[in-house]
Amino acid sequence: MRDLDEFTVTDEALAQMAGTENPRLKQIADAAVRHLHAFAREVDLTPEEWLQGISFLTAVGQACTPIRQEFILLSDVLGLSAVVNALHDKKAKELGTQSSLLGPFFREGAPELPLGSQIVDKPTAEEIVIYGRITDNAGTPLPGALIQVWQTSERGGYDLQERGPDEMDMRGNFRAAADGTYYFRTVRPLGYSIPMDGPTGDLVRKQKRHGMRPSHMHCLIGAEGHRELVTALYFGDDPYIGSDTVFGVSQSLVVEIKDDPASPIPGLRAVHYDFRLARQAPGESGRVGADPTKMAAQ
Amino acid sequence: MRDLDEFTVTDEALAQMAGTENPRLKQIADAAVRHLHAFAREVDLTPEEWLQGISFLTAVGQACTPIRQEFILLSDVLGLSAVVNALHDKKAKELGTQSSLLGPFFREGAPELPLGSQIVDKPTAEEIVIYGRITDNAGTPLPGALIQVWQTSERGGYDLQERGPDEMDMRGNFRAAADGTYYFRTVRPLGYSIPMDGPTGDLVRKQKRHGMRPSHMHCLIGAEGHRELVTALYFGDDPYIGSDTVFGVSQSLVVEIKDDPASPIPGLRAVHYDFRLARQAPGESGRVGADPTKMAAQ
Repeated sequence: MRDLDEFTVTDEALAQMAGTENPRLKQIADAAVRHLHAFAREVDLTPEEWLQGISFLTAVGQACTPIRQEFILLSDVLGLSAVVNALHDKKAKELGTQSSLLGPFFREGAPELPLGSQIVDKPTAEEIVIYGRITDNAGTPLPGALIQVWQTSERGGYDLQERGPDEMDMRGNFRAAADGTYYFRTVRPLGYSIPMDGPTGDLVRKQKRHGMRPSHMHCLIGAEGHRELVTALYFGDDPYIGSDTVFGVSQSLVVEIKDDPASPIPGLRAVHYDFRLARQAPGESGRVGADPTKMAAQ
Repeated sequence: MRDLDEFTVTDEALAQMAGTENPRLKQIADAAVRHLHAFAREVDLTPEEWLQGISFLTAVGQACTPIRQEFILLSDVLGLSAVVNALHDKKAKELGTQSSLLGPFFREGAPELPLGSQIVDKPTAEEIVIYGRITDNAGTPLPGALIQVWQTSERGGYDLQERGPDEMDMRGNFRAAADGTYYFRTVRPLGYSIPMDGPTGDLVRKQKRHGMRPSHMHCLIGAEGHRELVTALYFGDDPYIGSDTVFGVSQSLVVEIKDDPASPIPGLRAVHYDFRLARQAPGESGRVGADPTKMAAQ
């Protein structure tokens, strides 16, 4: 036995964990412990600060409910979710449309609607159309590809926030036509503040950040034999387009609402965006979705 | 705006946090984000694994109650608490007795008892005496120094576990005599398993660790003008003395129960341990205690 110091504790912890059965869990826990200890040493963390950290993480865990995932929110504002997304994109054998954050508001079981349907129950703002094609990377159409979209209302709230857990609105699932075309009506979603009434919001305020996400439309697209694509389209004229609190915006995902002679619904201004799906490599899981309403925090 | 990758997300996150008002919070959050992102990049964390991590941390937070702090337990088994302790010792201008973990079972308001009292309500095992002197580093006695001790029963449970939150047992506070002497009766505490019925226990099982702490007696010692000492004495013949699950044991804190002619209570076997307290540097907080029953997880 030796007297442990702030470096040898790390060796001892790794030694105790050396017998972990699952090699991937061992790899992840080893790295987590090394980085956690290195963090504490770098900032020379005091017992008082350690206890504040414990209290903060406890509060984050206790803020989670069946319809609110505060740890995902924390991961988002710290940029971890965006890093995981980028790593996921990078691992692909071939890269389709860039991905973006799933966010905490995806729900399974949204209604499948005919192409051209309006996804907002009672639109009170200008109707627009969003359209384009879903193809593979070579430009070959993917008929029957499923595109699931969800967005905030023109007031900036998701259905879970504005209508509660039992109703769905501002979301819909569509099947691409034989030539890969998809199109639907909606209204321009409003950008919004992340939930600021929990411990993550407290942190964001202390960091003097605005806590806003620019206006965007979430998309989850799947087609047989292709990598599932989780992404979002960002409206370029939003004042927060360059400072998304959760680091989801990429230049390639920025769109504009335009007068567009090619629009499939004449008379409505349109957003045109074509999605490309990468082929799925053997053994590669494309599935990244998680329905927070099914990931109950009990 | 640029397309973010797994490295540039880190830059963006640090840039958004640059306006943090409190410089220490800024320093800690910056380091946390850099290490968190580096961890994810090092193990190439997948979206599925990220979600498992989110679920794990959520479960840890939700396992916290007014009398159970699962995040402290997690910090303990990952060795973080021991690192923070070691850093705290290292910062001292002068070093007294080595410190050890406070653990989650300290409680304020234990009874102050006359020297020589038995701290166990109804002892059912061999009575022993623990004694010694409390001095400064030069060996000068610290009369009136307060030593608070708490331990498990001979069955391995703390009062909070065996008797509930409303009763105190197996703990007591003593004042050192004019020559710095302290002594009290007790029974040998039994080593025990950390609580294994929560998410931290699940992790420890997957890591094929035994989850045991060797037999020990907690001590929190304070004297005017001196650095508060949080430590513990470890009984050297415990089978887990070399593999404490929470990395609290140091060679200098290991004791033995002996026949001892110098014992202040003739006829009882004794543990002899002298504590040395370092002087408190100006502006230095010695206080590291935290009463979990007052740190309610709401």
